[in-house]
Amino acid sequence: MDYQKGEFLYEGKAKRIFRVTNQSELVWLEYKDSLTAFNALKKGSFEGKGSLNCRMTTLIFKYLEKHGVQTHLQASLSDSEMVCRKLTIIPAEVVVRNILAGSTAKKFGIEEGRPLAQPLVEFYYKNDELADPFMSDDQALMMKVVSRQEELDELKSSALKIDQLLTEFFAALDIQLVDFKLEFGRTSDGRLQLGDEITPDSCRLWDMKTGEKMDKDRFRRDLGNVEEYYQEVHRRMQNRWEKEI
Amino acid sequence: MDYQKGEFLYEGKAKRIFRVTNQSELVWLEYKDSLTAFNALKKGSFEGKGSLNCRMTTLIFKYLEKHGVQTHLQASLSDSEMVCRKLTIIPAEVVVRNILAGSTAKKFGIEEGRPLAQPLVEFYYKNDELADPFMSDDQALMMKVVSRQEELDELKSSALKIDQLLTEFFAALDIQLVDFKLEFGRTSDGRLQLGDEITPDSCRLWDMKTGEKMDKDRFRRDLGNVEEYYQEVHRRMQNRWEKEI
Repeated sequence: MDYQKGEFLYEGKAKRIFRVTNQSELVWLEYKDSLTAFNALKKGSFEGKGSLNCRMTTLIFKYLEKHGVQTHLQASLSDSEMVCRKLTIIPAEVVVRNILAGSTAKKFGIEEGRPLAQPLVEFYYKNDELADPFMSDDQALMMKVVSRQEELDELKSSALKIDQLLTEFFAALDIQLVDFKLEFGRTSDGRLQLGDEITPDSCRLWDMKTGEKMDKDRFRRDLGNVEEYYQEVHRRMQNRWEKEI
Repeated sequence: MDYQKGEFLYEGKAKRIFRVTNQSELVWLEYKDSLTAFNALKKGSFEGKGSLNCRMTTLIFKYLEKHGVQTHLQASLSDSEMVCRKLTIIPAEVVVRNILAGSTAKKFGIEEGRPLAQPLVEFYYKNDELADPFMSDDQALMMKVVSRQEELDELKSSALKIDQLLTEFFAALDIQLVDFKLEFGRTSDGRLQLGDEITPDSCRLWDMKTGEKMDKDRFRRDLGNVEEYYQEVHRRMQNRWEKEI
């Protein structure tokens, strides 16, 4: 099927969104080369980053679809563009942690790298002005992020299924999936689908052999060689998964 | 029964704790005149504050006991001293909110004073060094605050029962119970009991007629007349409840 890029709709931190002509249920996503951290207080970019992230998300979303997870991906276009189903986004960032790192490690005064007895699912209220505050289930209901506890339970079980699949996906690349962030939304007929992206921007990925960080923490923490590590993650994905998926 | 004050054990921000001679299951609590806020970064005091808080807690705990809530209060001694059962404290501050105010209002960018459709129960990890971070149920389990979800559910239902009782208790004094903080612990034979105190230090109390704050926010926010408002809350309690309880 052919898609035609329509009117510009919205520009986010990492993507531009356009209409798809004559297809009101679809949107056209263009991945940008920009990198941001700390709620966009820190900014950077490298050429080809949008294309790398678009290709990694495409591969991962196809893998997830193959294993029964519904995603918003409708069709792959160029290296940095895709067509997706339009979702009403649930205003929660859903974080899954297998190993403690980042804000939660800091909050509880625990050193980064502690493996968890079981994966931890967390909800953050999606609001840039408030810097995405962490919230409990009861607070999510108070803020009408969803209307019922059952929907939070559905988000949790979906996130845990994705965690299991992605942990295997990355383990096959000698990469430890430390944690990651998901966004979900609903189609106009009410189906829950995974939206946004899954990339080294939205995951913590540690090389299983060397322990090196292969994700956005290289940018956040000024560890250098950001571009090389994103390329290396993509190279391993392609080698292992491109034919199979 | 006579109790004898034993060896000094521990000094907290608002109380000193001593052994009770020959009674290893009991502790002797002495309320101090000090006032602290913002994790003890702000300090103050007024004479008679310890006595006021001790007498208010005593009255409230007797009221709660009368309505089937187990508390650690064993016996009232002088105006500023009581004997309590020794508890293994659960390291969670349990907060109940009827009207949004304080940190949660701020976190979600909501103006203080919004009534909630239903009371909100929150858990904070009791740790001064970490400034008592907010936590979800799953984080509380991760931090081994309790060992099972059922214990968190027990804390929530107990907190909600106390909320209902206290809302009525204060409404009879023309005081709106906005929110409050509880601490729970277990006796050596495993019973869950309410510990610590319930006072204008641990509650937000708004005068129903004037809207005036009658609690520690007067100290936190430099509103003045802290002592007078604590006395007024105590005076209303005494007038209404002293004979009945």
